Amino acid sequence: MASPQSDWAKIYPWTKAPVICNGPMRLIALAPLATAVSAAGGIGFLGAGSDASTLSSMLSATRDEIAKCPNLAQYMETANILPVGVGFLLWAGEDLLQAALPILEEYQPAAVWLFAPSEPSQPKRWCDELRRVTRGRTQLWMQIGTVAAALAAVRDAKPDVLVIQAVDAGGHGLQYGSGLVSLVPEVHDRISEFCAENGQKMPLLVTAGGIMDSRGAAASLILGASGVCMGTRYLCSHEAEIAKGYQNAVLAASDGGVSTARSKLYDSLRGTSDWPKEYGGRGVLNASWHDAQSGMTFEENKKLYDQAMERGNEGWIGDKARLTTYAGSGVGLVNEVQGAGIITTEVRQGAKRLLKIT
Amino acid sequence: MASPQSDWAKIYPWTKAPVICNGPMRLIALAPLATAVSAAGGIGFLGAGSDASTLSSMLSATRDEIAKCPNLAQYMETANILPVGVGFLLWAGEDLLQAALPILEEYQPAAVWLFAPSEPSQPKRWCDELRRVTRGRTQLWMQIGTVAAALAAVRDAKPDVLVIQAVDAGGHGLQYGSGLVSLVPEVHDRISEFCAENGQKMPLLVTAGGIMDSRGAAASLILGASGVCMGTRYLCSHEAEIAKGYQNAVLAASDGGVSTARSKLYDSLRGTSDWPKEYGGRGVLNASWHDAQSGMTFEENKKLYDQAMERGNEGWIGDKARLTTYAGSGVGLVNEVQGAGIITTEVRQGAKRLLKIT
Repeated sequence: MASPQSDWAKIYPWTKAPVICNGPMRLIALAPLATAVSAAGGIGFLGAGSDASTLSSMLSATRDEIAKCPNLAQYMETANILPVGVGFLLWAGEDLLQAALPILEEYQPAAVWLFAPSEPSQPKRWCDELRRVTRGRTQLWMQIGTVAAALAAVRDAKPDVLVIQAVDAGGHGLQYGSGLVSLVPEVHDRISEFCAENGQKMPLLVTAGGIMDSRGAAASLILGASGVCMGTRYLCSHEAEIAKGYQNAVLAASDGGVSTARSKLYDSLRGTSDWPKEYGGRGVLNASWHDAQSGMTFEENKKLYDQAMERGNEGWIGDKARLTTYAGSGVGLVNEVQGAGIITTEVRQGAKRLLKIT
Repeated sequence: MASPQSDWAKIYPWTKAPVICNGPMRLIALAPLATAVSAAGGIGFLGAGSDASTLSSMLSATRDEIAKCPNLAQYMETANILPVGVGFLLWAGEDLLQAALPILEEYQPAAVWLFAPSEPSQPKRWCDELRRVTRGRTQLWMQIGTVAAALAAVRDAKPDVLVIQAVDAGGHGLQYGSGLVSLVPEVHDRISEFCAENGQKMPLLVTAGGIMDSRGAAASLILGASGVCMGTRYLCSHEAEIAKGYQNAVLAASDGGVSTARSKLYDSLRGTSDWPKEYGGRGVLNASWHDAQSGMTFEENKKLYDQAMERGNEGWIGDKARLTTYAGSGVGLVNEVQGAGIITTEVRQGAKRLLKIT
């Protein structure tokens, strides 16, 4: 049997093993971040989220950026595939799919990352339609947070890549779940059994949630994955589209197991109410959280939140910080802002050293 | 600088690297389990918990068992140290310490594992007194679940070993926390800095929480630990003192991120009310939990719980299962009952293979 690493090299020829990618963070992972990650031998993802209105301009900007990177430009020309991925939120429904399909058909990104269906039929529907319009050239990634969801995804939608998201992940994920150390081996074993029994190709496994550096990346590979995704670490990259106040709050946070929590509070304060009920967003706890815990009414909290929004970057500073600071439980390991290419290369090479891969 | 592995070999000469140990599970980890783990080259722990009334008989039984194991008996004779550890819950207070001290002085176990203080002064008090009565021959292990607690422990009590417990752990632990992938590297880095700045010896690091097999063990070592602790896996050992119904419920559970939860419910149902408020117990969700979620009064739930207790092993069976089933989020990876020695050896050797340690 071929090793997963040779699969990666065949499907994404510009990448280097082990493959590192950035999470498709909505509004944050745009052309500069995705291009920098792919240019460094990873897979850069754009965060389209629940909205296709900027998808075409985002992909167009990415294509222009990639044309300036020799290794990627050459691949793009010969394979006619855009060497980045795009992430979508499936709960946005059929309208999003229909709006996205012609654009994805035009740009043919190397990967589409699907997350958070609100109906069990959505993963298969998206996979079928995306395979049709890209003639199977776009690889389909599906992010799950439980063993049951992994089995359902592999059975129904047959994704090429399964992203296993731990409860430690920053931003949106299942409200309840487990860490990678227990989740990855169980998903690996159950999916392997299912694929063997059904003569189905095993998807590649990617980890997400709590990984901040080469140690988390190497641990992921030991646990059974062959690729690694980071979100919070890339928040502190020069290429992330992120408010300085937000980035500084990420740099300042530590001890994320207790200084962050997963809840629906920050979505509510921001006026985001579309996520299915089983999802919450993990973020750094600040005055909005503490006031809510102390019994402040939502209306009062929302008023103060909106006032903090008007203060811009100051809305993230000190004891009076109120603004949403989505970040994972490993936030204390992120202590500087670096180039996304440096982050990608450093994590990959560090993981290889730890695993004695030559 | 000597590697942590050579420290282990020097301090616990009967062990083989990487060191695997069982959690000091109260009422479950008794002489048979602790002896089997130590005899297989790990460090077996007895669970004394909050009560010293059976400590002397437990240690006496362990000494008798160990005398039957050639490698351990020889060590015990030459070093005059009992090659196992004992775990205590510090919130039980000064009475427990005073009751335990003369017994520990008599038996000189290789390690004492301290957990869950209710006062910040307790770790140092216990460490000082234990070092005094055992003349420094008993190594002091301190279990923590946050970076802040790790720093406080190292600063105040200077434990020889720091056990880093993830939120995935079964049974008691902090209600809120993170997985090992983010927690271990941050604890490692902050403690290393602190020890370097203060000219203090770095404690050995052990992981606990979510580790079920060689993959979790190897990942722990990659993350920065040099020893590994498992609880749930040893619940399904022949040597665990455990009701068959409980053990079968552990074997049957899967997808622990959503099929287990950490709460105070099961402690309340069992009449255990002494744990500090920040701790909860992770267990497999059953009818007690679902009924509580559906609004059943505690009084009614407690009545049904007590009735289930009378049914014995049947109280853990099927849809009507109500009894406490403490287990970690990796419970789905435990699928058979084996000897504790086999478990210890298999996890150690598997971890070495994964890490290419010869």
